[in-house]
Amino acid sequence: MGNYVYESVKEEFEQWKGQGLSLNMARGKPSLEQLELSRGLLNVLDFDDCVADGVDARNYGELAGMPCARRYWAELLDITPEQCFVGGNSSLNMMYDLIAKAWSNGLLHSERPWSQEEKVKFLCPVPGYDRHFRVTESFGIELIAVKCGEGGPDMDQVERLAADPQVKGIWCVPKYSNPDGFIYSDEVIRRIAALKPAAPDFAVIWDNAYCVHEIRGDYVPFPDILKLCAQAGNPDLVFEFASTSKITLPGSGMAVMAASVANIQHMSKLMDAQMISCDKLNQLRLVRFLKDKAHTLELMKKHGDVLRPRFDAFLHALEEEIKPLGIARWTNPNGGYFISLYTQPGCAKRTVALCKEAGLVMTGAGAAYPYGNDPDDSHIRIAPSFPALKDVEMAAKVFCTCLKLATLERQGNECEI
Amino acid sequence: MGNYVYESVKEEFEQWKGQGLSLNMARGKPSLEQLELSRGLLNVLDFDDCVADGVDARNYGELAGMPCARRYWAELLDITPEQCFVGGNSSLNMMYDLIAKAWSNGLLHSERPWSQEEKVKFLCPVPGYDRHFRVTESFGIELIAVKCGEGGPDMDQVERLAADPQVKGIWCVPKYSNPDGFIYSDEVIRRIAALKPAAPDFAVIWDNAYCVHEIRGDYVPFPDILKLCAQAGNPDLVFEFASTSKITLPGSGMAVMAASVANIQHMSKLMDAQMISCDKLNQLRLVRFLKDKAHTLELMKKHGDVLRPRFDAFLHALEEEIKPLGIARWTNPNGGYFISLYTQPGCAKRTVALCKEAGLVMTGAGAAYPYGNDPDDSHIRIAPSFPALKDVEMAAKVFCTCLKLATLERQGNECEI
Repeated sequence: MGNYVYESVKEEFEQWKGQGLSLNMARGKPSLEQLELSRGLLNVLDFDDCVADGVDARNYGELAGMPCARRYWAELLDITPEQCFVGGNSSLNMMYDLIAKAWSNGLLHSERPWSQEEKVKFLCPVPGYDRHFRVTESFGIELIAVKCGEGGPDMDQVERLAADPQVKGIWCVPKYSNPDGFIYSDEVIRRIAALKPAAPDFAVIWDNAYCVHEIRGDYVPFPDILKLCAQAGNPDLVFEFASTSKITLPGSGMAVMAASVANIQHMSKLMDAQMISCDKLNQLRLVRFLKDKAHTLELMKKHGDVLRPRFDAFLHALEEEIKPLGIARWTNPNGGYFISLYTQPGCAKRTVALCKEAGLVMTGAGAAYPYGNDPDDSHIRIAPSFPALKDVEMAAKVFCTCLKLATLERQGNECEI
Repeated sequence: MGNYVYESVKEEFEQWKGQGLSLNMARGKPSLEQLELSRGLLNVLDFDDCVADGVDARNYGELAGMPCARRYWAELLDITPEQCFVGGNSSLNMMYDLIAKAWSNGLLHSERPWSQEEKVKFLCPVPGYDRHFRVTESFGIELIAVKCGEGGPDMDQVERLAADPQVKGIWCVPKYSNPDGFIYSDEVIRRIAALKPAAPDFAVIWDNAYCVHEIRGDYVPFPDILKLCAQAGNPDLVFEFASTSKITLPGSGMAVMAASVANIQHMSKLMDAQMISCDKLNQLRLVRFLKDKAHTLELMKKHGDVLRPRFDAFLHALEEEIKPLGIARWTNPNGGYFISLYTQPGCAKRTVALCKEAGLVMTGAGAAYPYGNDPDDSHIRIAPSFPALKDVEMAAKVFCTCLKLATLERQGNECEI
């Protein structure tokens, strides 16, 4: 398995430690070079040209968003404007609000608010997005892990679990899944759309976070889940989400919730008690800047050009240093923000802890699992987007050292890997 | 009581109807001239100068808001930055979120989430803000009307009702109350701060919506309710809210929730599951534009200069046409966005309906009461801010005609008023 022995790897590690590094690959955060792509955004709005479709973006009103913003998302997601509720800066917040309203009032087909159910459970394809899981966890909902492979969640398992009326929904990231970067297969998507859950108010949360977020290759079209659900007799099953957070400036984007018109009407009625409108001026600013789908895809190519070398740098180091040792496997996604790496069982937490000691902050090991509990202690999410390229290169080397050291420690300090 | 008789007033009304008017005084919406005061806002941000206190407003992070935004609100509300959580575009949304989190998780001193209480009740000083009442109503909370006079809520009533452990809070607009425009007296504020409610998680929602919103006269300072509560041994009793919606552009402002540091920490923990951050770029934009309290007060003087003639025009018509008849009384506020008018019992709904027939949309009669139910059918909220001055003048005349006609109808068509 190679010539490395514990002592030499340990020395490598101590050398990194001595450098006083401060690197962060914990979150899927765009880099400064990506922010630069939105330089024109801040001045795109003309104060005298803020009325569109008869709606003055500078004043109160229009709960479901600027009509032009609803059209923008409709084109991007291949649906109709009436199916789009355009919100504020965060799709995560909109997902949270959906659960919160299910909790306090119930969804369209709820028999009672979820807070009045004896128990509520939610399906969590793993590895998945920690913040999804935490939303449901914060309501005291029981999280059930479901295996997620190359083509998406294990649908045999999903169908079996959805027969429990206490199971009220599932988290999905259908394109470039967080963190594996998988694209759900047509077959999986078809089975999700055709799901016949016991709960009448089962909600598929379809977080299309990376719908136009290719790193390499051409834009990959995705099926309209709303239509597929309707065709399968499940028109109100799914709530789709997306945002411009990783298209323009994170934290200052616009998010969208897409659903059947009946769902949008039900949710709008509830949201009418919550707010007068979201920030329409920012919606108009973003639509003026992004224009339409074609223009957005051009911009996303540039994001891809910034991201690709960072992914390549990390993957290159893994290929060079780890592959010959056979001590881990990893994904090589065509889009999204993450690489998933699987260590030998019991080595993930230790690897991440060693990284931290050496000045490299990674996403907490296990974060991609419900309650932060990876039963194999094997999964590490790598987010190479934020640091400058030279820092990604260094971080990758630090990571490889730490992974080797953790594996050696696990195997017994004296043995070779 | 004057020379008007039903026939002549009826003819006046028919003449208005014939003009095909389309006037709207339903909501407290700033006018175009007020929007104009924020002309510089949209271009105040320089893409290369978006980092403040080490925080890049263009990227993710900083849940409680930009440090400079927290300092801005701290100065305006005379509190500390640590007591400020700066949010998105809507203080109403933040208030809703507070109730939603009490519902799903409970507040700092809750024994259980409110959703698990047998019954929850809330005190609603009347007349009050319809959207406040609807927030609590949307959770199925029972609304209890409490009389609100010139100096604020009837504190004898509040203290008596707060002895019921099912009563979990009270809605307050302490300065230029919506819709009466009253300022709570020092004595009322002192008694609110010293309240000893039976519920350990009783929440005073202190909507300081009009904290710097004078129409006439100098800026009126207001006491720091957080400090008063702390001094009275109630540090976690109150949640104060404010926003720039009526300082800059409505719907695109920044809101703040101010509370004890313990409350901010408790809420931040819950909000950490909901979002990564609010729109920090917009926070920075607004702080760059508004600068500080002194500069904000200068801007508010200009808003007052735009609003004052509209209020005066409406009040002038009431003085001329209604006062001699003695058929209504009204408030004459020094700030805020509304005039409250009280008709003779049983005339408010009819007046508003007649206005609508004549092409003038007013806030629904009764809206200022829980469940939209004004037991006297007497209160009408007048919002003169939005229409152009000449339209306010015309609307005032239309309103006077409709008020007279409704009163005459009520008294018997034949009698004089």
